[in-house]
Amino acid sequence: MNIQNLSREQLAERLAVLTEEYNSYKEMGLTLDMSRGKPGADQLELTNEMLDPALLGNFKASNGFDVRNYGILDGIPECKKLFADILGVKPENTIVFGNASLTIMYDYIAQCMLFGCGEEPWSKQGAIKFLCPVPGYDRHFSILEHFGIEMINIPTDENGPDMDMIDSLIADEKVKGIICVPMYSNPSGNTYSDETVRRFAALKPAAKDFRVIWDNAYCVHHISDEHDSLMNIFDAAKEYGSEDMFIEVTSTSKITFPGAGVAALAASDANIAAIKSRMTVQTIGYDKINQLRHANYLKDFASVEAHMQRHSDILKPKFSAVLDAFDAKLAGKGIAQWTKPNGGYFISLDVYEGCAKRTVALCKEAGVTLTGAGATFPYGKDPEDKNIRIAPTFPSRDELCKAVEILCLCVEISAIEKILG
Amino acid sequence: MNIQNLSREQLAERLAVLTEEYNSYKEMGLTLDMSRGKPGADQLELTNEMLDPALLGNFKASNGFDVRNYGILDGIPECKKLFADILGVKPENTIVFGNASLTIMYDYIAQCMLFGCGEEPWSKQGAIKFLCPVPGYDRHFSILEHFGIEMINIPTDENGPDMDMIDSLIADEKVKGIICVPMYSNPSGNTYSDETVRRFAALKPAAKDFRVIWDNAYCVHHISDEHDSLMNIFDAAKEYGSEDMFIEVTSTSKITFPGAGVAALAASDANIAAIKSRMTVQTIGYDKINQLRHANYLKDFASVEAHMQRHSDILKPKFSAVLDAFDAKLAGKGIAQWTKPNGGYFISLDVYEGCAKRTVALCKEAGVTLTGAGATFPYGKDPEDKNIRIAPTFPSRDELCKAVEILCLCVEISAIEKILG
Repeated sequence: MNIQNLSREQLAERLAVLTEEYNSYKEMGLTLDMSRGKPGADQLELTNEMLDPALLGNFKASNGFDVRNYGILDGIPECKKLFADILGVKPENTIVFGNASLTIMYDYIAQCMLFGCGEEPWSKQGAIKFLCPVPGYDRHFSILEHFGIEMINIPTDENGPDMDMIDSLIADEKVKGIICVPMYSNPSGNTYSDETVRRFAALKPAAKDFRVIWDNAYCVHHISDEHDSLMNIFDAAKEYGSEDMFIEVTSTSKITFPGAGVAALAASDANIAAIKSRMTVQTIGYDKINQLRHANYLKDFASVEAHMQRHSDILKPKFSAVLDAFDAKLAGKGIAQWTKPNGGYFISLDVYEGCAKRTVALCKEAGVTLTGAGATFPYGKDPEDKNIRIAPTFPSRDELCKAVEILCLCVEISAIEKILG
Repeated sequence: MNIQNLSREQLAERLAVLTEEYNSYKEMGLTLDMSRGKPGADQLELTNEMLDPALLGNFKASNGFDVRNYGILDGIPECKKLFADILGVKPENTIVFGNASLTIMYDYIAQCMLFGCGEEPWSKQGAIKFLCPVPGYDRHFSILEHFGIEMINIPTDENGPDMDMIDSLIADEKVKGIICVPMYSNPSGNTYSDETVRRFAALKPAAKDFRVIWDNAYCVHHISDEHDSLMNIFDAAKEYGSEDMFIEVTSTSKITFPGAGVAALAASDANIAAIKSRMTVQTIGYDKINQLRHANYLKDFASVEAHMQRHSDILKPKFSAVLDAFDAKLAGKGIAQWTKPNGGYFISLDVYEGCAKRTVALCKEAGVTLTGAGATFPYGKDPEDKNIRIAPTFPSRDELCKAVEILCLCVEISAIEKILG
């Protein structure tokens, strides 16, 4: 039943039925939160063993350093090795930081603003711009907006961003970079194709101080049994000699504990040297006890993958619940499209054009909090007002089922309202 | 025996004796490190119980938040309360950060550079200046130099910096701030007098965006049974309505574990609001597991003081060893002066004018690493080349005794060399 084919009478009738159903939910006084990409309570239990002090042994890192004291700017060797394995780079091309890759990205851009990356400081080059594949991650956009960097939307599909558009825009030397999530993207869950990654590596920006912030937050975060795989950006870049263009970050926030994990950066020799030189002023070093705890608990790549399978076991039914409800309630109605990701933390839902804000507002009234409409676009402005980021991980499966039921109702109600005008 | 009263012959004779002794040390091939303010291995053992996961209970902060998940930007309530008690401010005037107060200071100044604090960004106001009480902390100076902020030396005595000089310099609106360690100063160990603190509170800088970075790193770090006490800067500022001028920081780096502790900031309502607004872009929140661990282990101010007494029991004999050696080997010779701090991590040693570099080099040759001469001054330039920061905490007492023996020799050798010309 494609809703767009219904007569005005049929639509009005259907709206009345849906509204009645909606009102009955509203009367329940629910409070359901599907707004943020937070792991659920059961996921937090998976890593408790990491807090066993026995894992810290005699507190010595593999290089003999006591992790309880000052020292070691760029991370203990075993933790660098762990991230190197996860990201497929050499340990000397990684730096281990504190608890958040967001802070690494903020600091990197702050550094470029104040000191530049090889050229004049960005803050002294007038109005500069960044390319933002959309829909994307609201906190990326907040950083760029905070620094007054103009953001340009780049449409994406299942293969990643529109590379032709990027190729053409980077002829402007005021365009200083791109920020993106190449694997299990936030919010689509899509992974950039090999061709897309190669085209990133082959970019020839006019700006010599052009940087791609490659936020590989979900590199081991599979959900489906079918895993996506992302071509290694530094391997691809080597062919083009463009390694200096890429700053890759990741963290264990959704491997171990969000907020109490360890974050890392991977970059070329030149970028690593520049970043370390700034870090010597900024810190004596990050929390090495937490680094050792992570390295000894997560051990190696195979062990990380086994750990992630336990997350996946919890997340898969939640993602299925949402996708099944979408299939049952929205499919074929001509009013919504959504992604079916193999990993990550989100599903991207496109509702009827012009209806995202209204859908989110209707949900809110019925006690279901969604990520704000527009949040997946720079400046919070979705030009078509249709994208909603669905975050199925935090609620319990029961709560989630109820929330999605209400969401589907609201999607249809707002679409019919819109069509009726 | 004041060396300055000796004849050239007597000096030459004494130099020969000292040099022979020095050479015999040199032949031992020692490697002793008195360069950094690092706790010793025995101090690290004091806090191991904090790593017991039982201290984390059911992982809930006092406001019911699960510390293993995202959320809470400014610190869990019990950790804010702990720092509020330590600093004598209200919990709502504190923010709990990550592992390093150095990073808080770096970020605060970066923020002022890029966004200002109420006025134009500092980076857009041309050449700006900071006042630096000397001798001071090298990492403070590194931050200011990194941001291209001109540093002006302010002499200090046992009561703190020369406040008349500060009063006169702040008439220049290009002077944007002061950075200092008001209690058990690095390196003198002196604590600012009540009169000095009151004069800080009463400062009337021409610059409306003037800030005092009040690095209260050693606020509970007593060594002697006689404790210094520092007047509460915010209490003093209240009288003058100057609360917005002060940014106070501290950390548990030398209470629990250096690098794996928790750092905090205290500031006025207006400054807290401005800092939080920047933080929302920079991070989702800091490591709350470590915050809860600290709050439940350190409990309250009385318990912190009891814990610090255990550090003091270890540090007191080390400080005594240095001071006793200085008394025995250098007193009355007219070639050196030193402080006798009641707390902190350092002793400030002034050697014969023009001899600090030479003394440090002689020590180095004999296997004793000291903080670099000049490090206690902006740009690494001690105008009189006489100050050396002594850090007695890291070596064992035996190593320390040997190192100080050698140091005293080198102080005298370099002084005699200088006098002989």
